[in-house]
Amino acid sequence: MMKFEHNIPYKIYLTENELPTAWYNVRADMKTKPAPLLNPATGRPMTFEELQPVFCDELIRQELDNDTAYFPIPQEIRDFYKMYRPSPLIRAYCLEEALQTPAKIYYKFEGNNTSGSHKLNSAIAQAYYAKQQGLSGVTTETGAGQWGTALSMACAYLGLDCKVFMVKVSYEQKPFRREVMRTYGASVTPSPSETTQIGRAILKEHPGTTGSLGCAISEAVEAAASVSGYRYVLGSVLNQVLLHQSIIGLETKTALDKYGIVPDIIIGCAGGGSNLGGLISPFMGEKLRGERDYRIIAVEPASCPSFTRGTFAYDFCDTGKVCPLAKMYTLGSSFIPSPNHAGGLRYHGMSSILSQLYHDGLMEAVSVEQTKVFEAAEFFARTEGILPAPESSHAIRTAMDEAIRCRESGEEKTIVFGLTGTGYFDMVAYEKFHNGEMQDDIPTDEALAQSFAKLPRIPGQA
Amino acid sequence: MMKFEHNIPYKIYLTENELPTAWYNVRADMKTKPAPLLNPATGRPMTFEELQPVFCDELIRQELDNDTAYFPIPQEIRDFYKMYRPSPLIRAYCLEEALQTPAKIYYKFEGNNTSGSHKLNSAIAQAYYAKQQGLSGVTTETGAGQWGTALSMACAYLGLDCKVFMVKVSYEQKPFRREVMRTYGASVTPSPSETTQIGRAILKEHPGTTGSLGCAISEAVEAAASVSGYRYVLGSVLNQVLLHQSIIGLETKTALDKYGIVPDIIIGCAGGGSNLGGLISPFMGEKLRGERDYRIIAVEPASCPSFTRGTFAYDFCDTGKVCPLAKMYTLGSSFIPSPNHAGGLRYHGMSSILSQLYHDGLMEAVSVEQTKVFEAAEFFARTEGILPAPESSHAIRTAMDEAIRCRESGEEKTIVFGLTGTGYFDMVAYEKFHNGEMQDDIPTDEALAQSFAKLPRIPGQA
Repeated sequence: MMKFEHNIPYKIYLTENELPTAWYNVRADMKTKPAPLLNPATGRPMTFEELQPVFCDELIRQELDNDTAYFPIPQEIRDFYKMYRPSPLIRAYCLEEALQTPAKIYYKFEGNNTSGSHKLNSAIAQAYYAKQQGLSGVTTETGAGQWGTALSMACAYLGLDCKVFMVKVSYEQKPFRREVMRTYGASVTPSPSETTQIGRAILKEHPGTTGSLGCAISEAVEAAASVSGYRYVLGSVLNQVLLHQSIIGLETKTALDKYGIVPDIIIGCAGGGSNLGGLISPFMGEKLRGERDYRIIAVEPASCPSFTRGTFAYDFCDTGKVCPLAKMYTLGSSFIPSPNHAGGLRYHGMSSILSQLYHDGLMEAVSVEQTKVFEAAEFFARTEGILPAPESSHAIRTAMDEAIRCRESGEEKTIVFGLTGTGYFDMVAYEKFHNGEMQDDIPTDEALAQSFAKLPRIPGQA
Repeated sequence: MMKFEHNIPYKIYLTENELPTAWYNVRADMKTKPAPLLNPATGRPMTFEELQPVFCDELIRQELDNDTAYFPIPQEIRDFYKMYRPSPLIRAYCLEEALQTPAKIYYKFEGNNTSGSHKLNSAIAQAYYAKQQGLSGVTTETGAGQWGTALSMACAYLGLDCKVFMVKVSYEQKPFRREVMRTYGASVTPSPSETTQIGRAILKEHPGTTGSLGCAISEAVEAAASVSGYRYVLGSVLNQVLLHQSIIGLETKTALDKYGIVPDIIIGCAGGGSNLGGLISPFMGEKLRGERDYRIIAVEPASCPSFTRGTFAYDFCDTGKVCPLAKMYTLGSSFIPSPNHAGGLRYHGMSSILSQLYHDGLMEAVSVEQTKVFEAAEFFARTEGILPAPESSHAIRTAMDEAIRCRESGEEKTIVFGLTGTGYFDMVAYEKFHNGEMQDDIPTDEALAQSFAKLPRIPGQA
């Protein structure tokens, strides 16, 4: 029988009155601000006007604002949040017992909604501002499908058209994901497609290609810019996305404060940085303001190790090179990760905010092999009951490793990690794991060096 | 913007302290008790001893007890319940607005756990009593896969072996379901199989058959009875299952009472009756005791209409006729429903408790066509955000129909329905619906008459 602490529930649910009413912008507390997006043609920072053909006005304001600490959450977005938030902060009593660790482990579970992940937090915000601006619809790309699903849901709710470019390999391997998006009324196009100039060019150059996230981004941007009344939206990497995702961290902090719990270590998986950036933001704020110290750990796949083996440089966000340049830890926009199954973490770059924080020594990063991640995922499912997404399981792996370290040292550390989503649509990967057919696919130094050599030159710089 | 009632939250969550501590046995308040299970060889009621080779002792006690009103929930089961309960009672503000109805609609959502449905409520109880009795493992059958997943999860938690016979057509069409069960350590065998006498006999008689729930039950019972240390467990139909599922209704009633809400109509989908029986039990108790009146509506598929077109008679629970006879509304154990996609409702019979209540005029039943069900499912997904299971969507259909009736009559009725689970593993069916390939498959009168003609004779009766 489990040993519950009587004062701490198994799951901490905030009441609807305790829901945050403003997003927190961690940039306001950063001494070194994240580097601005650059126009690849001029080498100068992208202006509001230059971004207008692609993004909604209000989202550009959020993107460029490094100073405002809090952005009020519009009432209609707060109403939508009530449909699936607050998300529970769960004490992993069963996992602690199974690991025989003195550590106390908590996880913020964002999977209890149909999109299956935290992506809905930013999808509804971005769709809302598009609607407010009187637009007809939005375009986007999706890899694993969580972001596309989330955006489809938000657009269905607001009556907005939604065009999703889905990486072709996922479109074919995940027909159910595609069907969920159709259920929410979105149109889903496999990328690369014949519907865009860039898609046609890529298909001509690489016939039979199964696509990539970077390529789908290029198509979605082109599709938005070429039809009036449409804008492009993105589910990660951007400053605005981390702003919206701060709801995760704010709720987590409120729940912890309510019970007087102070974490020692905060852990999140990192692909483009949306979940990690959101989860850590209020804690990082305290750290930046010198109020409190935390160990903050980003976990990335060994197959796509932007932080741990990437370089801190300006790079394109997309393969087609139609997007601005962003300064980030990157493997190079020409780097093609192996068809690893944690699709949501298979991105060559990383949020500029997180990149700057990592560069300034304010957080750590580790990379983990895929087979180790699935071992942790299965162990977690059997002890905690939740079937985790492969992406989320990177954080589980590292949380377990830290808890095992506590067992060895006897330290009673408090660990908080982000459980971003569920793995219902990832059973092909679980099957490979069960059948012993899973590979770790770690890139060679040579492959990375070749990719770094192709990093863009910035006009006007040496 | 939605009009929220300020005193009623979007989602009502009970605190862990408000969780029920005992299950409620509606039979205690029934004037006419459900008819007993009969031994098909003797025609006499099954005794405790006759049931012992198949079921765990404590579960037989629960099965046969028509008098005890409350069974305390053991602490270890309550601890497990905390992993995914209380489940939220959600006010369907968005659905009400979309339907422009004056009705107030609430739904009890049981899908927020990895099994994706309410099935876990009874799975943990049955696995717990098996463990308490010192058994090595349990066997069961699964059709849609929700019950098999739930049982796998419960067995993984308690360290019990779990053998699942999965209807072959589902085994092949739902490889992801199978893989989830494997993740939880269960062994999954497609049924009919070569591993049992009954399986071999069925395969010999019908080579190439894709199986049925009734056939998988026969195999699972044989597998349990033929190995020492194993017992058979069932996810629906039985009295004990309805007892465990009363947690759904008890939580619902506590949540409604907390805010002074009194429902006029309570709606649930009905296959074997586990969800409906659980949801309505405390309300039916009040009705039976003459304390309050409610309209209670069972919703079943037009393709498998046990209540609305079945006959009230003793019948076998399984195709192989190894189980006792149960008195119930049945289409005949030889009735083979078309491969309709609401797999969890494709059972020829119905819980004896619910059958008796329906026979006594204490509840209503309606049947709905599959295409109408998916229309409702998609509408619900787009307005309320949750992607519902096809089974659950039967209740959605009828709740929407009642709400539309209120719009026409102007009545401000309060409707509560059970949303039993999510449809993540049912996207093949959604795809058929989107592509206009879905059929309603309503059985002919002739087919039913032929099946009724094969109902068993009871020894010693005319």
